Amino acid sequence: MAIITLTTDFGEKDHSSGAVKGAIYSELPEVTVVDISHSVAPFSVPEAAYIIQSAYSSFPKGTIHIIGIDSELNIENKHIAIKLDDHYFICANNGIMSMICAEIAPEQIVEINIHDRFESSFPVLDVFVKVACHIARGGTLDVVGKRIDRIKPITNIKPIVNEDESQIIGSIIYIDNYGNVITNIKKSFFESLCKGRQFIISARNHKLKTIYSKYSDVVNFDIPENERNDEGRPLVVFNSSDYLEIAMYKSNTVTVGGASTLMGLKLRDTVTVNFIKTL
Amino acid sequence: MAIITLTTDFGEKDHSSGAVKGAIYSELPEVTVVDISHSVAPFSVPEAAYIIQSAYSSFPKGTIHIIGIDSELNIENKHIAIKLDDHYFICANNGIMSMICAEIAPEQIVEINIHDRFESSFPVLDVFVKVACHIARGGTLDVVGKRIDRIKPITNIKPIVNEDESQIIGSIIYIDNYGNVITNIKKSFFESLCKGRQFIISARNHKLKTIYSKYSDVVNFDIPENERNDEGRPLVVFNSSDYLEIAMYKSNTVTVGGASTLMGLKLRDTVTVNFIKTL
Amino acid sequence: MAIITLTTDFGEKDHSSGAVKGAIYSELPEVTVVDISHSVAPFSVPEAAYIIQSAYSSFPKGTIHIIGIDSELNIENKHIAIKLDDHYFICANNGIMSMICAEIAPEQIVEINIHDRFESSFPVLDVFVKVACHIARGGTLDVVGKRIDRIKPITNIKPIVNEDESQIIGSIIYIDNYGNVITNIKKSFFESLCKGRQFIISARNHKLKTIYSKYSDVVNFDIPENERNDEGRPLVVFNSSDYLEIAMYKSNTVTVGGASTLMGLKLRDTVTVNFIKTL
Repeated sequence: MAIITLTTDFGEKDHSSGAVKGAIYSELPEVTVVDISHSVAPFSVPEAAYIIQSAYSSFPKGTIHIIGIDSELNIENKHIAIKLDDHYFICANNGIMSMICAEIAPEQIVEINIHDRFESSFPVLDVFVKVACHIARGGTLDVVGKRIDRIKPITNIKPIVNEDESQIIGSIIYIDNYGNVITNIKKSFFESLCKGRQFIISARNHKLKTIYSKYSDVVNFDIPENERNDEGRPLVVFNSSDYLEIAMYKSNTVTVGGASTLMGLKLRDTVTVNFIKTL
Repeated sequence: MAIITLTTDFGEKDHSSGAVKGAIYSELPEVTVVDISHSVAPFSVPEAAYIIQSAYSSFPKGTIHIIGIDSELNIENKHIAIKLDDHYFICANNGIMSMICAEIAPEQIVEINIHDRFESSFPVLDVFVKVACHIARGGTLDVVGKRIDRIKPITNIKPIVNEDESQIIGSIIYIDNYGNVITNIKKSFFESLCKGRQFIISARNHKLKTIYSKYSDVVNFDIPENERNDEGRPLVVFNSSDYLEIAMYKSNTVTVGGASTLMGLKLRDTVTVNFIKTL
Repeated sequence: MAIITLTTDFGEKDHSSGAVKGAIYSELPEVTVVDISHSVAPFSVPEAAYIIQSAYSSFPKGTIHIIGIDSELNIENKHIAIKLDDHYFICANNGIMSMICAEIAPEQIVEINIHDRFESSFPVLDVFVKVACHIARGGTLDVVGKRIDRIKPITNIKPIVNEDESQIIGSIIYIDNYGNVITNIKKSFFESLCKGRQFIISARNHKLKTIYSKYSDVVNFDIPENERNDEGRPLVVFNSSDYLEIAMYKSNTVTVGGASTLMGLKLRDTVTVNFIKTL
């Protein structure tokens, strides 16, 4: 039986995620419902876009992903369902899917048209669950919506490259649970431009020249453990989602802080890569 | 196989919710356990009452709801199991169920009497799980407790109406993940008194005269998107649980704040509706 | 089919826990995945040790527990799998398992050696899931690792007893969702030393002389409810995990605070038990 995942900004406390799970099990007792996140910042389309892009491909083909962020239906915010990479996504047409769609072409997009006249104040429960269960039963997208060609983009999601390809101007799209800051610069994109050149990565007044392959590569294991002082050292990696990330080794946002707070880096801040001319 | 839901104040970090799920699966491997919320404020009976009331009816008939809030057994805090609306609820007799029971008459209430002499410091794990699994196996309430007629009420849960029905004095019972404040004034109750009259809703020094049918009804879509300034506008709706709610359009408690913080509204604050005499 | 539990410091927001669940279901659609906690403080091995020790034994025999805390593979941080008490544990060899292993001897410990040359920046997803699914399918530990005898200890996890057994010097190992502080003094350990003597429990400038059998034992139910003033009273209990805990009756960390904040008690602070000589 199918899996239905949930990614929302409902938070951990309110009844909403529970109600949605109840509604799904009421229609399909045998389905598996999996929480991806209910702690997306309220109305944060870019965060939801990053989270669902990073999570979806670990799930089996055929999984149905409900994304409940800013999903109230109005004339500028229609509901859509997308088939892409053999996964299904149900959300508002507010930019959430533009990050995934920039990498993989959708097989099909429909604008959902099963809404009753009745105006729902809880469309994830009233509409998205119905569409998800329809798909889980083997139904087609054509039954629940009319085909459309294009979805609404998120602005400023792609980094900018200058004319002579000596500079990438990226920005911070996500701050994770460890306070690490994740940029919109993907590994494949970086490597296509880098071509073996040296580089300086700049964020505010911080400059970093090395991209490590894992976090603990900053540690010099030749030094005895009690003489080391690596916790809190800034470093750059491509994270497990292949995005360039400025991290701190063993940061803890609860106590000492992480890269975000300690380096003063916020969502949408600029991160620049300058490639160095080789003679 | 049955569904067992969990609504507790255990928080997201502690082992408690995991231990309870483990105990359920140890007894009944085929049951489906669904988290409604583990982030109810510690010992907050009114919050739990609102959450379970808003969530339960989305689940299939026959679902068993464990509510673990202030559930230590003592002479003033007995354990009860209730059948109501073809759902089962297991909790302490501390007022949690009074909100639901005010709307729908229970079919059966029992005071649980399966406790051993041994005093448990974790009754949700030791007692509620046993009762829930008993019910999930098709057992009756009479086997686990003795019938009682009445449950403990929550005080001040109902709004007050003045003699000539020109005023409702309600109060704030819940603040949601978006910072929106939810009152104890239900839609059906409001409408039975309003009878088409105009009204002013007052909370602190704020006055609101319109109840919208959805959040984005505050937006004037005729104005170009980049010229609008609707985010953070206060508004009133009946929310998806049919309670009168003072909200802010696209509020974000993490950044700019929500209705609660920006309008200075707290739990138990008064919200008044004054109906205006028509000549 | 087996149960796989997850205990991590991934937090509630990031995609990581969702991705891990997706990877498990991709390999084994019929498995039951249960979240124990994703809110362990980042890199906090002692917290994870306490949580998994308190939760695991409620699950059925044969359950597989993935613990994702500080699990990046390097020469000092190998991956291990342990069979103990008929449960399986998969984690880094960083001390997490030393608390459980101090009480129950492991049946088998292996150092996992299935890693590819490829360096993973997400070992829980890439390695632990593979090992867990191997075990869930009935595979043996010998196939995924080589046997080792010893695991890395957590330092300072055991309380100290003075020579004439008149004093226990313990420390705070966990602060729970209610702000209650949990020490490393276990009930059986305490009782083996107490031998019926009176005692004074000291934490900072606070002195407590009674260990209650449950929280509400501090309440005098002979006094009418509206004249009582028990909320926020400090007390000592052995909690449901059998650790000595300094609590406050009906504390609420969100509003008034709990034992931790109100008594000024922090992780690693000392808690002393002085037994009183009987003449």
